[in-house]
Amino acid sequence: MGTCLMTSVAMNGLKEKVLTLDTMNPCVRRVEYAVRGPIVLRALELEQELRQGVKKPFTEVIRANIGDAQAMGQKPITFLRQVLALCVHPDLLNSPDFPEDAKRKAERILQACGGHSLGAYSVSSGIQLIREDVASYIERRDGGIPADPNNIYLSTGASDAILTVLKLLVAGEGPTRTGVLIPIPQYPLYSAALAELNAVQVDYYLDEERAWALDVAELRRALCQARDHCCPRALCIINPGNPTGQVQARECIEAVIRFAFEERLFLMADEVYQDNVYAEGSQFHSFKKVLTEMGPPYATQQELASFHSVSKGYMGECGFRGGYVEVVNLDAAVQQQMQKLLSVRLCPPVPGQVLLSMVVSPPAPSDPSFAQFQAERQAVLAELAAKAKLTEQVFNEAPGIRCNPVQGAMYSFPRVQLPPRAVQRAQELGLAPDMFFCMRLLEETGICVVPGSGFGQREGTYHFRMTILPPMEKLRPLLEKLSQFHAKFTREYS
Amino acid sequence: MGTCLMTSVAMNGLKEKVLTLDTMNPCVRRVEYAVRGPIVLRALELEQELRQGVKKPFTEVIRANIGDAQAMGQKPITFLRQVLALCVHPDLLNSPDFPEDAKRKAERILQACGGHSLGAYSVSSGIQLIREDVASYIERRDGGIPADPNNIYLSTGASDAILTVLKLLVAGEGPTRTGVLIPIPQYPLYSAALAELNAVQVDYYLDEERAWALDVAELRRALCQARDHCCPRALCIINPGNPTGQVQARECIEAVIRFAFEERLFLMADEVYQDNVYAEGSQFHSFKKVLTEMGPPYATQQELASFHSVSKGYMGECGFRGGYVEVVNLDAAVQQQMQKLLSVRLCPPVPGQVLLSMVVSPPAPSDPSFAQFQAERQAVLAELAAKAKLTEQVFNEAPGIRCNPVQGAMYSFPRVQLPPRAVQRAQELGLAPDMFFCMRLLEETGICVVPGSGFGQREGTYHFRMTILPPMEKLRPLLEKLSQFHAKFTREYS
Ligand SMILES: Cc1ncc(COP(=O)(O)O)c(C=O)c1O
Ligand SMILES: Cc1ncc(COP(=O)(O)O)c(C=O)c1O
Repeated sequence: MGTCLMTSVAMNGLKEKVLTLDTMNPCVRRVEYAVRGPIVLRALELEQELRQGVKKPFTEVIRANIGDAQAMGQKPITFLRQVLALCVHPDLLNSPDFPEDAKRKAERILQACGGHSLGAYSVSSGIQLIREDVASYIERRDGGIPADPNNIYLSTGASDAILTVLKLLVAGEGPTRTGVLIPIPQYPLYSAALAELNAVQVDYYLDEERAWALDVAELRRALCQARDHCCPRALCIINPGNPTGQVQARECIEAVIRFAFEERLFLMADEVYQDNVYAEGSQFHSFKKVLTEMGPPYATQQELASFHSVSKGYMGECGFRGGYVEVVNLDAAVQQQMQKLLSVRLCPPVPGQVLLSMVVSPPAPSDPSFAQFQAERQAVLAELAAKAKLTEQVFNEAPGIRCNPVQGAMYSFPRVQLPPRAVQRAQELGLAPDMFFCMRLLEETGICVVPGSGFGQREGTYHFRMTILPPMEKLRPLLEKLSQFHAKFTREYS
Repeated sequence: MGTCLMTSVAMNGLKEKVLTLDTMNPCVRRVEYAVRGPIVLRALELEQELRQGVKKPFTEVIRANIGDAQAMGQKPITFLRQVLALCVHPDLLNSPDFPEDAKRKAERILQACGGHSLGAYSVSSGIQLIREDVASYIERRDGGIPADPNNIYLSTGASDAILTVLKLLVAGEGPTRTGVLIPIPQYPLYSAALAELNAVQVDYYLDEERAWALDVAELRRALCQARDHCCPRALCIINPGNPTGQVQARECIEAVIRFAFEERLFLMADEVYQDNVYAEGSQFHSFKKVLTEMGPPYATQQELASFHSVSKGYMGECGFRGGYVEVVNLDAAVQQQMQKLLSVRLCPPVPGQVLLSMVVSPPAPSDPSFAQFQAERQAVLAELAAKAKLTEQVFNEAPGIRCNPVQGAMYSFPRVQLPPRAVQRAQELGLAPDMFFCMRLLEETGICVVPGSGFGQREGTYHFRMTILPPMEKLRPLLEKLSQFHAKFTREYS
């Protein structure tokens, strides 16, 4: 009773809140997420000001900050939306306006849903039929290497699956705390998740001089240093890379797998851009395929989780939040624990599962929808390839900007020279120098890009990430405007 | 370098896995989730056996284990699906088969989406227009008390929002670890989330003798005991109750608010069943409304988060994973932290947001869809009310079963007497006695219900949770079969 009386506060006047910055979860406080950080909030404000008629040196804000194709005007793939509409509103199955193959697909999916409706929870790992579709897709992708539907878990976007696997891996305190190796520059989901889960972020640097290649010597350096203060247990790879746009060579993947095996690291392969490969000579190799083809002991023992999503590729269906993880060589008891953890969240959104099913089993050449599907898909991928090329070209013509080839994914990550006086001015303002640059860029041109400091970069270098998603007719002027702004900024501060 | 060499293992033969039960996250290991536990896995197996032609004493498995209306045959509300289909596949906006008001709604929503498409990520807190719709709904529901769209966050089902708020609250170690009061019996998302987050679960018991009422003296007992070993900082209420089906009286809610204020507890009100109230004389009172009407200091200072979902009510759109949380009197800096945390997950699924928008702004009496919408809605709610009544009646006619009135939600939670020899037999098998009962029930009748031990119950009492969702024509035989099985089971073990 004593304790209760002690903590009960007198009722006169204001009490302090229960939940304050001081009392809240300190791990959450440490989370950072640049892709939607202050620069995006400012972009929102500017848009509002424009709508209210405030005069600006630009007429629209262009959001090149996030890999969100449809937000930038890309049209949905017709077939995907036809099937989904049929599933959402099955009365349409009687409509003459939908092709037969779309109807067949929709009926097949509805049969596999509880109560034949998207409105029922699915099993927590996702609809069994769709897990089987995903397994077939992986087998085709990987030249016949088998995939087991029971090792596939559908998710609320890849983000959710990545968080789930990281959550399983986190344990220990002080020097035994789990460490996770992540690339720098990285997609900030990783740093944010590790902060939230109170794991140790172990940085390995990609080699900008070699088109952002991953170097095993650098992995080893990072690992050895980390072992002094934590217990590194996992290695994350993003391939094709975000924000860096590189596509890993097969030999490099082999070397990474050997390294992970020797050093006993759980591999996490973020392969959400597997359909986004543009550069001549670049090709996507899945970690699963390479691992399997390396034979034992790698094929039989190396633990791997590989992630995919409906948000990227040619479909860009971000809003539906569909994705999956395939686990390989996962301990059976741990897999049961994973299953249990997923069941607490009930299930991933069923519409996202349906879209995923279309992505992994698109129309076949004999289907009525094939020609249109194929044409729409190719058009998107061809335009992305052209925009990747153009981005590299225009940036590399600008003095003080250097851009590696955009081999894959949806981003360029050019390096910018910033004059010492600009760096100094930023420091006076308490801003990272590239944040200062990007903020000024936004205020003066309406172009919204994310500073490199949000992804990590070598000390003393400055970058920004810009998507290649704006429509072609806007992209060229955009790139030129950005280059001109950089020149002007450089003059202003030298 | 020394550390690296030491931990590198020789390459002969098998290595232990990196991720095992011993090395994995111990908090995840401690998670339990009964609603999808062993009994549901066994039900799945039985269904498969039936399909394969194995002879059983029943012809179908009836899943009365989960609050999933459409899985049990409930039809979706037409208007909701029409609007969603239009949003998914906007070509349909030209179709004569959709009512004008559905088209208007769809166009309004598409206007508010990035790129006018559901395929774009929304802002992390959810589409602004829909947050405004939710705010208007809350104002209407609460008799005009204002709601601020900026305090509303859309979510991936209520589950996601509940996890987010709990995550903010968790801090401390040892005796300063955050404690969270939850009802017993509870919806096991709460115990699972607290285990995962390494917070302390503090049980307060609902009073079965008074129709599962919440008693402030019991809250005080639980709180005082907990203060010896943790730092209780939040109080969860589920109203209407899952699994217990009670609807709280207004005086009770006032008493709980006063208690929370005096004891400085953050209130979490799980109100996902706010549309599911059946009993004569029962009425839903939101915590927000009662809190506000109590005036200062409660209205101005008491922190509250209230949760809602598209999964329950009359729509039962579980698969879409839509929901929201409204926060009240949350510290502004903490709210910014919450915003940041949400942004890491990018956004809730947009189709779920769209359905939520329909639920909070349904057709008005002047709209062409009003009559049908209203008729469908009423039919579902009337049938649920009838099934709630029937369940209570049939169970209370059975000797050895005692069932409180199902005032609201979707479940009965009857108490069953189990003979001492059955309890002994269960213990020999290493099972909770009610798990033993439910497993036998499933094997012999095909009826799948969840043992009370999965939700918590007073020591030495036994219960099961059964949904009221099976269609009327199945429900009566089901209830009778269950009662008869209990009688037989009782004879067998006495
Ligand atoms: C590398 C990478 N992984 C994962 C994701 C998450 O995507 P989603 O959760 O939408 O599937 C993204 C999104 O941009 C990404 O770039
Ligand atoms: C009391 C309660 N809260 C929350 C939920 C979560 O529902 P959802 O995540 O589907 O919105 C449920 C689901 O059964 C519930 O019963």
